Amino acid sequence: GSYTTSSESSKLLFRQLFEKESSTYTYLLADVAHPEKPALLVDPVDKTVERDLSLIKELGLKLIYAMNTHVHADHVTGTGLIKSRVPGVKSIISKSSNSKADLLVEHGDKIYFGNLFLEVRATPGHTLGCVTYVTGDGSNQPQPRMAFTGDALLIRGCGRTDFQILSLPKDTFLYPAHDYKGFTVSTVGEEMLYNPRLSKDEETFKHIMENLNLPYPKMIDVAVPANMVCGLQDLTGKSAETMSS
Amino acid sequence: GSYTTSSESSKLLFRQLFEKESSTYTYLLADVAHPEKPALLVDPVDKTVERDLSLIKELGLKLIYAMNTHVHADHVTGTGLIKSRVPGVKSIISKSSNSKADLLVEHGDKIYFGNLFLEVRATPGHTLGCVTYVTGDGSNQPQPRMAFTGDALLIRGCGRTDFQILSLPKDTFLYPAHDYKGFTVSTVGEEMLYNPRLSKDEETFKHIMENLNLPYPKMIDVAVPANMVCGLQDLTGKSAETMSS
Ligand SMILES: [Fe+2]
Ligand SMILES: [Fe+2]
Repeated sequence: GSYTTSSESSKLLFRQLFEKESSTYTYLLADVAHPEKPALLVDPVDKTVERDLSLIKELGLKLIYAMNTHVHADHVTGTGLIKSRVPGVKSIISKSSNSKADLLVEHGDKIYFGNLFLEVRATPGHTLGCVTYVTGDGSNQPQPRMAFTGDALLIRGCGRTDFQILSLPKDTFLYPAHDYKGFTVSTVGEEMLYNPRLSKDEETFKHIMENLNLPYPKMIDVAVPANMVCGLQDLTGKSAETMSS
Repeated sequence: GSYTTSSESSKLLFRQLFEKESSTYTYLLADVAHPEKPALLVDPVDKTVERDLSLIKELGLKLIYAMNTHVHADHVTGTGLIKSRVPGVKSIISKSSNSKADLLVEHGDKIYFGNLFLEVRATPGHTLGCVTYVTGDGSNQPQPRMAFTGDALLIRGCGRTDFQILSLPKDTFLYPAHDYKGFTVSTVGEEMLYNPRLSKDEETFKHIMENLNLPYPKMIDVAVPANMVCGLQDLTGKSAETMSS
């Protein structure tokens, strides 16, 4: 409605977006009850920045944050490109990632967009600096809660998930950074039952992992240095190698 | 909760599933407030039947319907395979598709699963028999409503959408059978503003369509005959050519 400007009201607009080549999900969240419709993107991909920005424009949103869950090894983040295209957008990554961004966040931090917010939870494993962003707890926050797990949990897959994700309510929706089988979402309850990492004992799991014979990630040599500076090195001409880690 | 067996209560479980090769979305819906957790699949793909059935099993659902929005030209429906794997499942397609199925539905029909239901709306254009399945109107039905448009509306794309979709409330979620750009969902209000078919006048649109130079659909020669018998010809040895159309 049109009378939604009180400090308590909020309304989540949510979109899940897919980048086919790296099977990456980007998430758009906005508080459309707020007069400015502030929005953020989680894990944008360089190749789909145009699509994402044009959607944001069409929906009348004001992008304020471009966030990463971790330093990706399989695609180049869209953060740098977005910052160059939309003045005022702030990039966010975890302090423990040892990467460059406008805002470096830590476990327990809250990231507000309008009257909605995301909590930062440290979920190291896949990389040391991996964080999971979880929608807030409260009557004006989305129910069930939603967790953007990055690579810390893949659906039925082998992220090194810890209790930071599993301690969330069972109906919490889990949205990973990737899916290779066409799943879009899971829940805490479901993964506790069916994720091989969580439903198998340590020894069985180690055996599974050692026999996966995972290929060397396609884009790791390009993507990691680029993502350490949030995709900015191509734009500034500064080499990623000059960044301290 | 455990006291949800009154005839009025309902709770939608909803999953969007993706088949990468044909960029097809399959939708799983179930009423998990109903003791039997009756479920249906919209537009299942033969290649992802195993994934879909194992998800249904894990979630403790009882699959009762495998439905198609139309005779697909780009992939083989999973309906036949599902029927052979899960006894009791009924296939559904529109009467006007001139295809074979256990239940042939028409505009205005309601398809119940538990206390939830889908309405059938005739949305011919892409094929004569195209229908859109829309969640019911009512206090115990999902809000906003959800429409499974098949190929009658693609996000920002050129389905020959008519007022059967556009007359739905503006916040109705639109879920297409395909997306090639990584979009997962749109709304009636959004498509009215930004779908080229709807936001451009007839002449401009005709010009766009005539200049698209669309490739001949990859799988049309295999998929159409197969889908006319809902994927059953491979299983029964009956040739699709013997079916009247
Ligand atoms: Fe990743
Ligand atoms: Fe299709």
